[in-house]
Amino acid sequence: MGSNSIGKEFVVTCFGESHGRCVGVVIDGCPAGLPLNEEDIQKELDKRLPKKEEIVSARREEDAVEILSGIYEGFTTGAPICVLVWNKEVISDDYDAIRHTPRPGHADYPARIKYLGFNDHRGGGRFSGRITVAFVMAGAIAKKLLELAGIEVLAYATEIGGVKMRSTQSLEDIREKTYGSSVRCPDPKVAVEMEETILKAKKMGDSVGGVVECVASNVLAGVGEPIFDSLDAELAKMLFDIPAVKGVEFGVGFEAARLKGSENNDSYVIRDGEIEAVTNNAGGVLGGLSSGMPIVVRVAVKPTPSISKEQKTVDMLNMADTTIHVKGRHDSCIVPKAVPVVEASVAMVLVDQLLRAGLIPKVLGVEAVGEYSDVTEED
Amino acid sequence: MGSNSIGKEFVVTCFGESHGRCVGVVIDGCPAGLPLNEEDIQKELDKRLPKKEEIVSARREEDAVEILSGIYEGFTTGAPICVLVWNKEVISDDYDAIRHTPRPGHADYPARIKYLGFNDHRGGGRFSGRITVAFVMAGAIAKKLLELAGIEVLAYATEIGGVKMRSTQSLEDIREKTYGSSVRCPDPKVAVEMEETILKAKKMGDSVGGVVECVASNVLAGVGEPIFDSLDAELAKMLFDIPAVKGVEFGVGFEAARLKGSENNDSYVIRDGEIEAVTNNAGGVLGGLSSGMPIVVRVAVKPTPSISKEQKTVDMLNMADTTIHVKGRHDSCIVPKAVPVVEASVAMVLVDQLLRAGLIPKVLGVEAVGEYSDVTEED
Amino acid sequence: MGSNSIGKEFVVTCFGESHGRCVGVVIDGCPAGLPLNEEDIQKELDKRLPKKEEIVSARREEDAVEILSGIYEGFTTGAPICVLVWNKEVISDDYDAIRHTPRPGHADYPARIKYLGFNDHRGGGRFSGRITVAFVMAGAIAKKLLELAGIEVLAYATEIGGVKMRSTQSLEDIREKTYGSSVRCPDPKVAVEMEETILKAKKMGDSVGGVVECVASNVLAGVGEPIFDSLDAELAKMLFDIPAVKGVEFGVGFEAARLKGSENNDSYVIRDGEIEAVTNNAGGVLGGLSSGMPIVVRVAVKPTPSISKEQKTVDMLNMADTTIHVKGRHDSCIVPKAVPVVEASVAMVLVDQLLRAGLIPKVLGVEAVGEYSDVTEED
Amino acid sequence: MGSNSIGKEFVVTCFGESHGRCVGVVIDGCPAGLPLNEEDIQKELDKRLPKKEEIVSARREEDAVEILSGIYEGFTTGAPICVLVWNKEVISDDYDAIRHTPRPGHADYPARIKYLGFNDHRGGGRFSGRITVAFVMAGAIAKKLLELAGIEVLAYATEIGGVKMRSTQSLEDIREKTYGSSVRCPDPKVAVEMEETILKAKKMGDSVGGVVECVASNVLAGVGEPIFDSLDAELAKMLFDIPAVKGVEFGVGFEAARLKGSENNDSYVIRDGEIEAVTNNAGGVLGGLSSGMPIVVRVAVKPTPSISKEQKTVDMLNMADTTIHVKGRHDSCIVPKAVPVVEASVAMVLVDQLLRAGLIPKVLGVEAVGEYSDVTEED
Repeated sequence: MGSNSIGKEFVVTCFGESHGRCVGVVIDGCPAGLPLNEEDIQKELDKRLPKKEEIVSARREEDAVEILSGIYEGFTTGAPICVLVWNKEVISDDYDAIRHTPRPGHADYPARIKYLGFNDHRGGGRFSGRITVAFVMAGAIAKKLLELAGIEVLAYATEIGGVKMRSTQSLEDIREKTYGSSVRCPDPKVAVEMEETILKAKKMGDSVGGVVECVASNVLAGVGEPIFDSLDAELAKMLFDIPAVKGVEFGVGFEAARLKGSENNDSYVIRDGEIEAVTNNAGGVLGGLSSGMPIVVRVAVKPTPSISKEQKTVDMLNMADTTIHVKGRHDSCIVPKAVPVVEASVAMVLVDQLLRAGLIPKVLGVEAVGEYSDVTEED
Repeated sequence: MGSNSIGKEFVVTCFGESHGRCVGVVIDGCPAGLPLNEEDIQKELDKRLPKKEEIVSARREEDAVEILSGIYEGFTTGAPICVLVWNKEVISDDYDAIRHTPRPGHADYPARIKYLGFNDHRGGGRFSGRITVAFVMAGAIAKKLLELAGIEVLAYATEIGGVKMRSTQSLEDIREKTYGSSVRCPDPKVAVEMEETILKAKKMGDSVGGVVECVASNVLAGVGEPIFDSLDAELAKMLFDIPAVKGVEFGVGFEAARLKGSENNDSYVIRDGEIEAVTNNAGGVLGGLSSGMPIVVRVAVKPTPSISKEQKTVDMLNMADTTIHVKGRHDSCIVPKAVPVVEASVAMVLVDQLLRAGLIPKVLGVEAVGEYSDVTEED
Repeated sequence: MGSNSIGKEFVVTCFGESHGRCVGVVIDGCPAGLPLNEEDIQKELDKRLPKKEEIVSARREEDAVEILSGIYEGFTTGAPICVLVWNKEVISDDYDAIRHTPRPGHADYPARIKYLGFNDHRGGGRFSGRITVAFVMAGAIAKKLLELAGIEVLAYATEIGGVKMRSTQSLEDIREKTYGSSVRCPDPKVAVEMEETILKAKKMGDSVGGVVECVASNVLAGVGEPIFDSLDAELAKMLFDIPAVKGVEFGVGFEAARLKGSENNDSYVIRDGEIEAVTNNAGGVLGGLSSGMPIVVRVAVKPTPSISKEQKTVDMLNMADTTIHVKGRHDSCIVPKAVPVVEASVAMVLVDQLLRAGLIPKVLGVEAVGEYSDVTEED
Repeated sequence: MGSNSIGKEFVVTCFGESHGRCVGVVIDGCPAGLPLNEEDIQKELDKRLPKKEEIVSARREEDAVEILSGIYEGFTTGAPICVLVWNKEVISDDYDAIRHTPRPGHADYPARIKYLGFNDHRGGGRFSGRITVAFVMAGAIAKKLLELAGIEVLAYATEIGGVKMRSTQSLEDIREKTYGSSVRCPDPKVAVEMEETILKAKKMGDSVGGVVECVASNVLAGVGEPIFDSLDAELAKMLFDIPAVKGVEFGVGFEAARLKGSENNDSYVIRDGEIEAVTNNAGGVLGGLSSGMPIVVRVAVKPTPSISKEQKTVDMLNMADTTIHVKGRHDSCIVPKAVPVVEASVAMVLVDQLLRAGLIPKVLGVEAVGEYSDVTEED
């Protein structure tokens, strides 16, 4: 399997560059019989667009999803689904200066070494945050499959530029309020503070990072494939594939290192005839398997490396010290854009694991194998 | 690829259970021509044995490595290498009680749901920390390959039960002192405090966790396979496959979320004719590629879930609340044992990535393809 | 890895349907630095077009290749390459009748069972010979890489409708004459007979099959990955993925079953200081590894299942016997079109195996890793 | 995935050498809950032993199967199953002569080139027919799973040294008589002729090959994963991985190249309310999917390359022509031994495909997920 593919049954292969013709994705292994159209995907992709553009981004993206294969009469066919968005706005001049002058915090330098200069450096090329469009498109399909399994995946910003959410929000509030906030924080008061923090950084030609939390609820116990494709490992791999992620933790995460076993263990009780854990310090994962409690994962997103402030760097052609002002329009904080990407990433992994566990059928919407009634016309 | 395999060129397949006949591993893709014997592997495996047993463990493991295949006349042959240790001490009676009574913090409950009770529950079976023996055996081979590439991987405990290392140690100190310490901490004073913390928890029938840091030095820039097999993602996946790991972060990690871009970005300078970063907040990974700086990764290890204290749990046969005292001999802190496992895990991923990048040849020790001199006799 | 992907280092992922929007392919793992443009691919794709259309095909395909990603300034970048052709001519009415009435010899019946009717049945959908366009596009890139390694892959029809080539042709003749012949047979006299046979079958509303042979020359000894990814196994897998292939054999193939060991074994001699085999009954593969002799593989192509003659079949909606006249314009013999597909298939497998063996570098065209000269401008 | 692994859900990883310590296999992905013991595997392995040893083999193999992992209380647990046989009889002296003198027809020469002499050459090492022990052990488990699905896989010799079966045998005869025959041919008269042919070749210090046919009955329609993991492609890959196989064909196979479409197509009819094909020229595979008809595949097995007759070869150390008499005890015909290997190979592929299609559950023997009754004790 190539390095631009991920998943074992819900297999996502990604292509495209920041300033190339398009960003696209091929999803192989989506069960046949899922109702799917471009609007289903567009809706998720639009979550990457900021509500108040002045806050987080200076770049306007109008990406219209096109499905190239795998759908017939409104349903998935079992064949690979290719989806892409064309890159409309390509101003590459901004990037000519950086060809031999790596931007600190970006992949420019190692990419140049790895590919000996053959890589498309414009806008970071293959290493641009732009490629997360592919994550979201594939994730949109994954989310539709999870809906059928009754699983909901919700991500939101819990911390931006040092401003943290001060209380836990209900799933309902998260569901309702996250995307109404320009910073994707479900707590309106905290959201305002986060906005201010971003604007302040922007004014100074600087940037801020933050933390995105994601909750997947209604995942039954026992999902995950030991020992190397454990649920937390697969989630972490996908999440670290998102550019700018520097840390991933489950449940109490790093804090677990400071707890006693008696404090950290989640005891079991019977409630209404069902086994439940009293607490969820484990974040819904035990021994690499889902525990039946909500999966709770947090990712640390670093501050946008592209800043207007002058930075020290080197001229690789002349092997000399120099400085750089990164030009172009950049987000002062990519955390809001990362929120739907985290959501999509978690969804993709969960679908892959559910398919592997045999918990999603290979063909949907029809009861029995072997029936010859005209299923597509009846739906 | 099965879920008990990992890696794309250095492919590690693991088998065995805690109380079964053995724990073993098959390594497929190790270049031919590597000098390798059982002592090379034994030496790494012995790092899991505590120096002062009373401190961290009450269980004595004497694992003698056996190589079953893939070696001929002291060299790897290019064929898969099977290595195993036989399980000598199997007292399964301790575990009969837990068959239907899941231990909090363990995989007992989700494993039972996943496998409908067919899983070997003794000692956690396939979910036991015992399986990390396989990680270390495969890692021993990976470390020998890394040596050839001049890469050193060193792990050590930086925090146990809330006691943290207060200063950065030199690589030399880490190399010399880590395994001389029963808690695998290279700072002798801190190590003593950590020991005391563990003993205190032990007395109370409780346990503690901690943090393991790992540094890989001398990894050249550009290693990693974008976008889904990025270096940090692959490392995180392997590290989360270690039982009890709840968080993984690179460089400043979660702290990056609180820094400004201008603080977090690592600027470049020319030093002695080479490009270097002034700081290493990125932990040696940029855009999923190695940056040329040391790779620095930290993992959070939760407190041992097996504690003697009474815990609430449920009787799954009768679906009733009950309590459990986990019997048997257990480590009060698994952080020291996790140290060589983290080291092995990082080594395996690095070798796999180097092989994928074509930076380790497929056959070692002989200069040119096509020469027919009797290479094995000359060595 | 999804079932629409193949290869481990040169990974080809295919999408699209006969009557959908396009047929496309993503190639992941092509080394950076290969000069590549659309014409390189178009040229190979045009080999599927018959010289004399009346002979083999009634369907006109004008496929203009578009590269969507992975190329920058005329060179591959190391990022995945997406290439596609848009489907221009889509007359799906012809296929309405077959929705519930499977055409004998086609995948209609098993596909309907597998996907419960959700599959795109138009023109065979995902099971159409049209998808071999993807093979040829990926193969074009593979052939460019093989050229660098000095390897040539040549396929040609040796038998059509019972008419066989009566003598071995030189590589030069094969290279020069194959694609000058409408039936892709390098022997002009035999080619004429083959044409007549096809026309005769066509007049009778029937079809014929044949045999395609492929020779890969200049493959050095030792290529192939034992034991499950042996060279012959990988070639056979790819070749059986071509629709209509019913048999694959190497060297003397099935005839080996009738030879004595002393007749079948290829003895070695020293010729001009090199080891050579006296004969090539093995077809260039021994124990799954290339032997250094030319790789010779033959595939049996069945007669086109689409024929105008009336055939017995069933109405799956009413579960009743019925008959079918397959409408639409179909090739009376697909052997000529299969020739470039076989060539592409063999090329893809060889490149994948050479990359796996480390015999093609990961970045081309530049001598040393670590040089910072502006490589792309110098080329 | 390593080259010594095969399958995507029923993943078989093989290790060991002809004259090393053992030949073993790890099966990852076998559903939990399958009753399995060593006798189940031993029984299949014993099929490799000739009934009349003097006929086909001069080497006595007494392989006692050991299961090292993955079984608990008589059932598979869902964990990887490691099975091996120890190599008891290791006379390596016979092979010292061949170290630099490649045996014609063997992998000696290309293996030496590939591994630069590091490969274990004794008895062919990793390239020995001995490794098919691993195929049969894994296949034994696959066959137990197929039984549950009502699928039977039967292989038998149809041709040896030019002597062919003259009539089709019933499945019942094949089932009853194949392994009663020393040559694994279900037709007793033909079997006698085959024996004589083998003995005649043996006397002359020569060897013969043959053809093995395999029928898998009761495979429902629609099994296979298009387009690259099609059923025939996956079967061919596995079968070409068996040493000495030089050709694979389905149904009428190469003969299809000589038939008209109207002759080759298998028409459909309704029989007893079920759709059936009138003929099975396709050998049960259409468009890479099972057609519902029996799968019929034939493999060409070359004559044993090890013959006592003098053969020309080269001395690779001195780069000089020389001759070789292959010593040691060798089968004069490996077709009888290949029969259970072909059977095992087909079984492994079918199980993998059935698992991928969701047609075999991930846990067997218990009706519903989520029930907490003590399943293993009740069985």
